[in-house]
Amino acid sequence: MTSITLDMNCDMGESYGAWHMGNDEAVLKYVSSANIACGFHGGDPGTMRKTVAAALANGVAIGAHPSLQDLAGFGRRTIQISPQEAYDAMVYQVGALAGVAASQGARLHHVKAHGALYNMAAKDLELARALCQAVRDVDGGLVLYGLAGSRWIEAAQSVGLRTAQEVFADRTYQADGSLTPRSRADAMITDLDQSIGQVLGMVRDGVVQATDGTRVPLRPDTLCIHGDQPGAEAFAAGIRKALQEAGIEVRAM
Amino acid sequence: MTSITLDMNCDMGESYGAWHMGNDEAVLKYVSSANIACGFHGGDPGTMRKTVAAALANGVAIGAHPSLQDLAGFGRRTIQISPQEAYDAMVYQVGALAGVAASQGARLHHVKAHGALYNMAAKDLELARALCQAVRDVDGGLVLYGLAGSRWIEAAQSVGLRTAQEVFADRTYQADGSLTPRSRADAMITDLDQSIGQVLGMVRDGVVQATDGTRVPLRPDTLCIHGDQPGAEAFAAGIRKALQEAGIEVRAM
Amino acid sequence: MTSITLDMNCDMGESYGAWHMGNDEAVLKYVSSANIACGFHGGDPGTMRKTVAAALANGVAIGAHPSLQDLAGFGRRTIQISPQEAYDAMVYQVGALAGVAASQGARLHHVKAHGALYNMAAKDLELARALCQAVRDVDGGLVLYGLAGSRWIEAAQSVGLRTAQEVFADRTYQADGSLTPRSRADAMITDLDQSIGQVLGMVRDGVVQATDGTRVPLRPDTLCIHGDQPGAEAFAAGIRKALQEAGIEVRAM
Amino acid sequence: MTSITLDMNCDMGESYGAWHMGNDEAVLKYVSSANIACGFHGGDPGTMRKTVAAALANGVAIGAHPSLQDLAGFGRRTIQISPQEAYDAMVYQVGALAGVAASQGARLHHVKAHGALYNMAAKDLELARALCQAVRDVDGGLVLYGLAGSRWIEAAQSVGLRTAQEVFADRTYQADGSLTPRSRADAMITDLDQSIGQVLGMVRDGVVQATDGTRVPLRPDTLCIHGDQPGAEAFAAGIRKALQEAGIEVRAM
Repeated sequence: MTSITLDMNCDMGESYGAWHMGNDEAVLKYVSSANIACGFHGGDPGTMRKTVAAALANGVAIGAHPSLQDLAGFGRRTIQISPQEAYDAMVYQVGALAGVAASQGARLHHVKAHGALYNMAAKDLELARALCQAVRDVDGGLVLYGLAGSRWIEAAQSVGLRTAQEVFADRTYQADGSLTPRSRADAMITDLDQSIGQVLGMVRDGVVQATDGTRVPLRPDTLCIHGDQPGAEAFAAGIRKALQEAGIEVRAM
Repeated sequence: MTSITLDMNCDMGESYGAWHMGNDEAVLKYVSSANIACGFHGGDPGTMRKTVAAALANGVAIGAHPSLQDLAGFGRRTIQISPQEAYDAMVYQVGALAGVAASQGARLHHVKAHGALYNMAAKDLELARALCQAVRDVDGGLVLYGLAGSRWIEAAQSVGLRTAQEVFADRTYQADGSLTPRSRADAMITDLDQSIGQVLGMVRDGVVQATDGTRVPLRPDTLCIHGDQPGAEAFAAGIRKALQEAGIEVRAM
Repeated sequence: MTSITLDMNCDMGESYGAWHMGNDEAVLKYVSSANIACGFHGGDPGTMRKTVAAALANGVAIGAHPSLQDLAGFGRRTIQISPQEAYDAMVYQVGALAGVAASQGARLHHVKAHGALYNMAAKDLELARALCQAVRDVDGGLVLYGLAGSRWIEAAQSVGLRTAQEVFADRTYQADGSLTPRSRADAMITDLDQSIGQVLGMVRDGVVQATDGTRVPLRPDTLCIHGDQPGAEAFAAGIRKALQEAGIEVRAM
Repeated sequence: MTSITLDMNCDMGESYGAWHMGNDEAVLKYVSSANIACGFHGGDPGTMRKTVAAALANGVAIGAHPSLQDLAGFGRRTIQISPQEAYDAMVYQVGALAGVAASQGARLHHVKAHGALYNMAAKDLELARALCQAVRDVDGGLVLYGLAGSRWIEAAQSVGLRTAQEVFADRTYQADGSLTPRSRADAMITDLDQSIGQVLGMVRDGVVQATDGTRVPLRPDTLCIHGDQPGAEAFAAGIRKALQEAGIEVRAM
């Protein structure tokens, strides 16, 4: 008998110099993998060191969270870059965080892109392929985290990377499996019980109900938890507790 | 019978985005190791990729050329950073270039700091030690290039790194073994024959004559060639030819 | 009897720190207005000072050349910014260059956006309007340089700015008055005589012939000269000479 | 009968992109002048716009708060720059904020340097002079805020700028009039009553008692309030109330 497992991941290490962001220490108690900013949208080298150390201390898997180069826009603005530019930026950032990990006797476990880069490649196979090729060329053992059912998964598999299909507890879905754009009123799920219901449905039944009622098939490997919002810790704790009570083991792949 | 060898190194990959610097392709034909900028004073990720590829194509050893974070000042301005900040910046940059090398199936061979960081740590043991510790923590097999007889060498040896003592063909020396400050009229050697004479004296006799006539003992492992000046290629070619004619083999450690 | 006049403008001051770009001193002898980079894609504060001084010494009108914030991409990559972000970036950069001009007892004459920002707003009225509003809010006396017939002109007029319709000597046109994309083989005009013919036709007859033979009406106020290409100086000199021989006076509006 | 007046100033607008810093809205109710970051250590263009608007809405005088170019170090690290580089950086930043002010129909009132730049020039007359010359060259009507009795005041007066001598409520003094370094245990005053006593003594008697008991003469024009610490608002309110009760009017020069 095999147990059902689910990874819980959270973006972190997004402070920069004198500026603080997020509630990393608190959230690290509940997640099983950490996506750590690599300096292009947040995460100066000192923050990277401290975040890697905190993840290791909590037994949490370490991943790179690379971004478009845009400190002023926090990596949230679409920048039209070529696949070659994307490849180069990915190699650089994964390498930098791998160096930080190595300096602490650790290795990277996974890569999950940030913000606009995550969204752009989810819909653009050529871009996704360049990014996944970069990950594989630096370290073929890394796991690629990407939006479930998106171009990320297709691209990662095509270059031979293991993948973790990512789902969301606090976002609603469209009939085509995409996330409801934040501009719409029904994009976010703020009620914890509703979130738990969505997550358990995805894990147990492989299905999420879209806003129009459509039942969308999904294969969730990792669940994204947001750490920079009010109530983030309570939300993470609530999800984790519900998963445990449902007999679902929370751990990285 | 063992032959005498000397490494010839050159800083390169210091272009950034649309801005070009240096004459890397030409100089790569003459040197045996390349110090490649890592993004903090020059060297965007695409330039790093192209420079690593060019070094590999020329059979030249690949090294990181990390800097203070100062694009506007090209890493030439002293910035008062703590040893911890220096450590973190070193880990990040060595990691980034190691990632680029890995993506091309290669490994880093050495590290040589750039500009103000090189000069600061040459005189500051605590700073040098933090930087060398960072190199060792990322990859203990790397060779540390530092000013011959400076704190760099002392610090690198204290943390267990192999070292390459660096000497200069186009700079004059002071009685204490330091380089004559550029602000002085007799700082630079522009005559090729005089440079060759200085280099051969250092390699054969382990001595350089300071501007005041003092004979200063040195143990040269690697010779710095500058690639961004007019006549750089001819200078590099002339030095290399003279070394070969003197029976000195040019290769990385 | 009134004489026909045409402004000749050139982007300049695009060096940054230790990196050099362009041939500003040479081109300043031929143009009547200078578009000076403001730090977001090139043009550190020292370069801005020197470029303003050189323009003043040559009797050339001083304009701001603001950009998207993208040093690594030299302002050439589309970045999706909101009209508010565009407004803020414009105010900041025009203010900065106005400060440099003021420190030399001079005033700004015009504004011409750079690279991707120039191209984005040429087609996007809301973006163009935000940018023109920013220019007007900082200094209502500035002249807005924009692609002839584009949204720039419409937006600038709607907020009450004077405009200079910009035409190109080294680019071909499409039937709708847009420039032929650089990706096409017939995008560039490299033959000086052909360039001169196109310019004289635009100035005398108010018409340019598109690549498909269509005659497109245009009202040229200012002619863009590129300063960073091989042969830029000879090209600028040739155009200027031809204009003078045709009795067309070259001066800023 | 003339009333005694004192300015209360606070650094603000030091957020950057997605990162928040300080409690500007709260502190603006108590101060009479605002020193607004200009993008080199904090303060992106959008933050500058919002901070200028908030200051205007509160009737608070607007000043520039320029810095060394060091986002990663928040302008707190000494960077060895030449007087010319300092001049250029000052012109650029004052110009940028003047542009933001102009876009809202306002004018700058003063300039106060940030962090390491403030401390460096307080002791270095050549540097202070270059910075003050820059301020005067952009706008000779600006008031220069500098550490009371420091090189800032001497330099500003030598170039013909009006000055505001700055004193501190939450810092102790040395016998030579300098602030006690933060590395010492007795550097900070955290007790509100002790702060009020120090401020009233400075304003009424022109004297502050140094940590060794020496009575140091001072001529306070403006009092620095810190806005980014816990309890900042209560501290500002307490100081302001005590000044009012003592019949001292709080307003900008």
